[in-house]
Amino acid sequence: MKICASILSTGSEVLEGRVTDTNSVFLLERLAELGLPVEHVLSCADEMGSILQSLNFLAARSLIIIVSGGLGPTADDLTREAVAEFAGLELELNESLAQQLEKLYQAKGRVFDEVNKKQAYVPKGAVVIPNRLGTAPGFSCAVKGADGITRHVIALSGVPFELKSMFDEAVLPFIIKEILPPAGGFGFEKRSLRVFGLPESTVAKRIQESSLPPEVIVSYRAVFPAVDVVLKVPRGPSAAEVIQHSLECVEEAVGRDYIFADDVNRPFEGVLHDLLLEKRLTIAVAESCTGGLVGALLTNMPGSSAYFVGGVVSYSNHIKTKLLGVAETVLQEHGAVSFETAELMAQGVRNSFSSDLGLAVTGIAGPEGGSAEKPVGTFFIGFCDKNESIAYKCFFSSTRERIRKYSAYAALDVVRRKLLRRPIVFPGNH
Amino acid sequence: MKICASILSTGSEVLEGRVTDTNSVFLLERLAELGLPVEHVLSCADEMGSILQSLNFLAARSLIIIVSGGLGPTADDLTREAVAEFAGLELELNESLAQQLEKLYQAKGRVFDEVNKKQAYVPKGAVVIPNRLGTAPGFSCAVKGADGITRHVIALSGVPFELKSMFDEAVLPFIIKEILPPAGGFGFEKRSLRVFGLPESTVAKRIQESSLPPEVIVSYRAVFPAVDVVLKVPRGPSAAEVIQHSLECVEEAVGRDYIFADDVNRPFEGVLHDLLLEKRLTIAVAESCTGGLVGALLTNMPGSSAYFVGGVVSYSNHIKTKLLGVAETVLQEHGAVSFETAELMAQGVRNSFSSDLGLAVTGIAGPEGGSAEKPVGTFFIGFCDKNESIAYKCFFSSTRERIRKYSAYAALDVVRRKLLRRPIVFPGNH
Repeated sequence: MKICASILSTGSEVLEGRVTDTNSVFLLERLAELGLPVEHVLSCADEMGSILQSLNFLAARSLIIIVSGGLGPTADDLTREAVAEFAGLELELNESLAQQLEKLYQAKGRVFDEVNKKQAYVPKGAVVIPNRLGTAPGFSCAVKGADGITRHVIALSGVPFELKSMFDEAVLPFIIKEILPPAGGFGFEKRSLRVFGLPESTVAKRIQESSLPPEVIVSYRAVFPAVDVVLKVPRGPSAAEVIQHSLECVEEAVGRDYIFADDVNRPFEGVLHDLLLEKRLTIAVAESCTGGLVGALLTNMPGSSAYFVGGVVSYSNHIKTKLLGVAETVLQEHGAVSFETAELMAQGVRNSFSSDLGLAVTGIAGPEGGSAEKPVGTFFIGFCDKNESIAYKCFFSSTRERIRKYSAYAALDVVRRKLLRRPIVFPGNH
Repeated sequence: MKICASILSTGSEVLEGRVTDTNSVFLLERLAELGLPVEHVLSCADEMGSILQSLNFLAARSLIIIVSGGLGPTADDLTREAVAEFAGLELELNESLAQQLEKLYQAKGRVFDEVNKKQAYVPKGAVVIPNRLGTAPGFSCAVKGADGITRHVIALSGVPFELKSMFDEAVLPFIIKEILPPAGGFGFEKRSLRVFGLPESTVAKRIQESSLPPEVIVSYRAVFPAVDVVLKVPRGPSAAEVIQHSLECVEEAVGRDYIFADDVNRPFEGVLHDLLLEKRLTIAVAESCTGGLVGALLTNMPGSSAYFVGGVVSYSNHIKTKLLGVAETVLQEHGAVSFETAELMAQGVRNSFSSDLGLAVTGIAGPEGGSAEKPVGTFFIGFCDKNESIAYKCFFSSTRERIRKYSAYAALDVVRRKLLRRPIVFPGNH
């Protein structure tokens, strides 16, 4: 049997169409990166018979079965029992696990009763997979089949962020060390980058028209408002060289100024975090249509108090005047959504908060409030520092939610480009 | 065998992590709307053996199998052959289909050769499902199993927009007319609610210990920071009565005050939107650890300018004093994260913004900054209106991201409870 994996996602919520099975999507991505072929992805209900039949079906063609969900303490959590029965093993209490869980529950001030203790049981001989972000731990269990071949059943929490950390921290190293053949020839050299300010189709077109080496596999993913680009080259003697050359090729084709991060796991606010710390600059924000989103982004990173002083959400015109000093005559003459107001908002918040940089966003997120001159999706970004005070007009036509999000990121992009002395451009989607 | 369906998605691009299987997501939603239970969703490669084994596995538990993909003219399109073999039927040329396809190819200026003609073959006796938006038509095939039970295999194009139109225009009417029993008695009566402030396990425990009628199916979903509860009762003469009784039963068991919405599609900010509009109240927010999240939530709904005046993000102490009037002595004596500061922040923002309500959040989101007395996850919510000024202490132990999100929602929950005159309680996860 060739080395391949299958994914079993348990739980009625997916089959009932209430949630999308993002766990399988994540696992497929990770296994593809690893170069481990996937034979099947299967969803089944929280039901003993169904889980068992599913495991048997998958085991016929896969050496590794990754099961998500069904590890919690409630009565519909049956993965533990089903895997034990599939493996022909008893469930046994893992004492050290029980102690850890008890401490965890105590720390949270919750009762660790018999129901919760269920989570400390694993099939006899299974390796425990810690769950750093939640209570239900996972496990990995080697099962020798009637054909003499050993399968690995790996059970993980179904909570997406728990599953991700469990997979990256424990399962990935385990698969590489214990299951895959020794390094060399397996998997891909990979590099990635994140683009902001261009639609996915434009990014793809520019890359397709570039002179990328033919062995490079390019994949795109729109993680709004970013477009992620991943480049892969099969491992081999020249892979490192080819991937480096390809990356430069892609950067040039897309346009270096549009690339805000050199890794798809790098958030926008992380890039700003490093830039602001490096340049020892503080920032304050004045927001209108974004309602607080820019401030929320800028405080996502631990340690953001080193550069983020604060902000004003001036949703009403009165507040723009009272707290930010935007003259009423300017609001009357040019409107709240204008070059002039954006610039004065940025100046006002910089003065009031005594920060090095002032940043402002004002726009029309819709669905109401647009005009022929300033349709829904029009927004202005104001920026000022000790040398300069300026505003930019932008346009992004979409839903209220996406316009708000896009304009918050566009505001951060102005700061990024200013600090890197790059030109400011706003193609948006107009 | 109960009437239920399964979905088989063929094609390597999903298994290789290159595309997300949106077809299955679409089909799951549609089948849920129809009330047709789904037993499995399975992905398999474009490979004869794998498709056949998958069909056999699914047929063991499903009366309807919907297959997507593999109907095109190329060599890796094998669904037609696999279904014919599974059904024990010959493939035969459908003459009228061949003529339609020939016309279609001519209209597009493309050659209709033997390769393309492959798309006009269907298993003997199958019903053709037209593909209005593409070339490859689908088909539906009744297959009598060794158990004497007839299964329906329905094969559709794997191109998402083609699959959608084929399903809505032909498959849905076909399932309703030919497969489902006559109207009434099929599917479920459904009701749902959203809970905030209790962990999923507590919600589940309270419901399990309640005296719910045994025919009610309860499912839970943690959509952080809410816990969604869905109740279902099989349709029938007394279903409406049973579901109404069950809902009341669940509301009482969980605690009515914790239920912030009577529909899982209702966002928290939508509930606040209606309450604030109904009571004609305006609100302003002062945020520290949430950095703008509360304001961003309160401006999510179109029309929020009717009640949201604005806010101050007072990330630094200096701003708490300068813009919100929190006395320096209070900050020194009690700290920025305290009852006193939260209360004064709420008062300060209400005064400064001349709003009816003032709301404030200050806390320690971590990972640094905690102490024995005020560990990471401690936060205070300040609230004031014309009659009252008060602060609440809360605790939620988690990651920085989740503490910030939880505390923003907890602040909104204080407003909800105040406006509904409900008691304020903060179990958090402590």
